[in-house]
Amino acid sequence: MRVLGVDPGLTRCGLGVVDSLPGRRVKMVDFGVAASPADDTVDRRLLAIAEAVGQWIDRFSPDAVAIERVFAQRNVYTVSGTMQASGVAMVEAARRGVEVALHTPTEVKAAVTGNGDAPKEQVARMVRRLLDLDDPPRPADAADALALAICHIWRPNTLSPTGQAATAAQKAWMEAARAARRRRKSWAAA
Amino acid sequence: MRVLGVDPGLTRCGLGVVDSLPGRRVKMVDFGVAASPADDTVDRRLLAIAEAVGQWIDRFSPDAVAIERVFAQRNVYTVSGTMQASGVAMVEAARRGVEVALHTPTEVKAAVTGNGDAPKEQVARMVRRLLDLDDPPRPADAADALALAICHIWRPNTLSPTGQAATAAQKAWMEAARAARRRRKSWAAA
Repeated sequence: MRVLGVDPGLTRCGLGVVDSLPGRRVKMVDFGVAASPADDTVDRRLLAIAEAVGQWIDRFSPDAVAIERVFAQRNVYTVSGTMQASGVAMVEAARRGVEVALHTPTEVKAAVTGNGDAPKEQVARMVRRLLDLDDPPRPADAADALALAICHIWRPNTLSPTGQAATAAQKAWMEAARAARRRRKSWAAA
Repeated sequence: MRVLGVDPGLTRCGLGVVDSLPGRRVKMVDFGVAASPADDTVDRRLLAIAEAVGQWIDRFSPDAVAIERVFAQRNVYTVSGTMQASGVAMVEAARRGVEVALHTPTEVKAAVTGNGDAPKEQVARMVRRLLDLDDPPRPADAADALALAICHIWRPNTLSPTGQAATAAQKAWMEAARAARRRRKSWAAA
């Protein structure tokens, strides 16, 4: 299975392609960043992100595109570009008939490090180790995109059809997913 | 000048095309709604909105696409679909090289009724009167889209190169625009 991870952003959108290998191993295929100039209009910046995501899907033919689920309880203005970039990335996948999955930052951290509150540096270190890279992937957006792809490959239902979590990381993952579902429900009811 | 107004939404996205005529008159060309099924995945729903907006641009060849600027200070979860739909609409315009303009709900209400706090029904009534329609356009999303198009046609800088507001409606419009800029600045600084 091949997954394209997308860490959505308007200024920098992280992209990372990961293949799953037998024995719960993962292999880095490519990673990078789609950027758009801060002095351009938002519509053209979103188009630049859309075109880059589309090119990555066409080039690497992933089975799924895993995108960070964007939350913002405080400053909606600064998050709107991120949210719009995630929507634009979703459309590029849907246009090509590629499955889209959303994962929260907590789910990603839990999947990769076993700790849903892990600091960014720890996530980057684990991504480097899991993918057997010489250095932690840079910039951080690309590392996050690779972590998203790994998170999707390791999501509990692919590994454990019985719903039994096999590892501490998967247990933390499932707990984070449950917490996110509870949070969404309470928001939807608000 | 021809403007396509877009009232962004995931379940219903309002669309309205308006031509400007000499003497500060406006003419309705068409209006409608792009809908997406609530039980589909978000990525496919956004694709449906994107394709509909693209088709309207191709069919009516507007000079500009005016989209409601989405704000949400409280419940980000429910607004994320609206925000993503607006981003997706922007990309469809940018892909075709059509100018994109964002207007806040307050700006639109002020432009159409002279009152930035006007209730929705008053906006719909004024849209009906300004466009010389037999009935207020339905659903409300389509009326809002037509109001957005009118707001863009009547934006102060097209009518008054000197920056002098010609009418009470334009004064209210400019005040609303200034207030929105102040709000955005204070958010960006937060």
